[in-house]
Amino acid sequence: MSREIRLIEVKEEIFGDNRETAARLRRELAGRGTLMLNLMASPGAGKTSLILRTLAALPDACKAAVIEADIDSLVDAETVSRAGTEAVQLRTGGFCHVDAAMTEQALAVLQGRDYDLVILENVGNLVCPAEFDTGAHLNVMILSLPEGDDKPLKYPLMFSLCDALIVNKLDYRELTDFDLDKMRQRVLRLNPKIAIFPLSCRSGEGLRAWLDWLFEHLKPLT
Amino acid sequence: MSREIRLIEVKEEIFGDNRETAARLRRELAGRGTLMLNLMASPGAGKTSLILRTLAALPDACKAAVIEADIDSLVDAETVSRAGTEAVQLRTGGFCHVDAAMTEQALAVLQGRDYDLVILENVGNLVCPAEFDTGAHLNVMILSLPEGDDKPLKYPLMFSLCDALIVNKLDYRELTDFDLDKMRQRVLRLNPKIAIFPLSCRSGEGLRAWLDWLFEHLKPLT
Repeated sequence: MSREIRLIEVKEEIFGDNRETAARLRRELAGRGTLMLNLMASPGAGKTSLILRTLAALPDACKAAVIEADIDSLVDAETVSRAGTEAVQLRTGGFCHVDAAMTEQALAVLQGRDYDLVILENVGNLVCPAEFDTGAHLNVMILSLPEGDDKPLKYPLMFSLCDALIVNKLDYRELTDFDLDKMRQRVLRLNPKIAIFPLSCRSGEGLRAWLDWLFEHLKPLT
Repeated sequence: MSREIRLIEVKEEIFGDNRETAARLRRELAGRGTLMLNLMASPGAGKTSLILRTLAALPDACKAAVIEADIDSLVDAETVSRAGTEAVQLRTGGFCHVDAAMTEQALAVLQGRDYDLVILENVGNLVCPAEFDTGAHLNVMILSLPEGDDKPLKYPLMFSLCDALIVNKLDYRELTDFDLDKMRQRVLRLNPKIAIFPLSCRSGEGLRAWLDWLFEHLKPLT
């Protein structure tokens, strides 16, 4: 039992430090006119696809960068770079989340250039990333139709803390029994203020509402 | 820096304790003629569906139980119970994995009855559960087609340690660009001995090969 307690102490210490680092990062970024968005989801829900769609729709004047937090590959950073946006790869080497210190290291690589938007693609995981403030101004998550409409019941913390929920893979609609209304009720019970955007990164359906919401948040900083 | 080192020490201590508990559990279960299977996957990949399909196909003489490790809901345990199999719910309350001590607590609830098969449905997560030996004899994971064929590159530890990989949601085949051969190559590079079963829990296609493999492993213990 004593060991368990010891672990919790360490964890809380780390959470405390992390919160301070995150709050400082958030202030510094806002001071430089940079909006940081932390994008979270299960593996394969469509984080990279949403990032590519979003980057392609940004106004020319908007300078963006992407921080990729894959566990052991460069796949996503390479994909984003090929699409013409600066990308930094955070190798989390087995870590299951990104914290503010890791984000700060990645931002240091980008330093010296004024970005309007930095998108952090967090590790594919609905549990741990929800526990660590990255310093982002906006927390956004993706739930994809094939994952099922019961996910808010199983991963409530993630759904509770996000500012927006992308419901991706609408193009799979006919193959799933995903009940969008039921899911919406479950999410709103946890988080009445969350903005919900059903869309398909593949077909482009529904993207406009998401982009408008994001651009609204970009405005005050640009 | 000292804090980081302290965390790692605690983690290793826990891993060491966990390995011992897991090894003991594994021996005790084998002594009672019980095969334990640890089932891991992303959220929504089809863990509960595979369990229901598997339970329905077991010979009548085979006594099975399920340990459900949801984070904050009883959804899956209720589903399994409704299907007529004893289910224990492990409330991990925000934890991102199941360890051997948690498994032992769940098994204690089942104690006194001789099960041939215990299926542990781990937390939906491709990262953390891979790091903790649960005491199971078989580690099995599910990757579903909508998640993409690049997942072995991103979550190599999980793919490295599993005895079998279920590739679920074959019925989504026409809607995805999932390349089964490419995925297979990526997995076999990490784990040449892994058994791979493409199937669809929905249509039932491919289930036979998975069931035969599982029944082969049940034999020596029954």
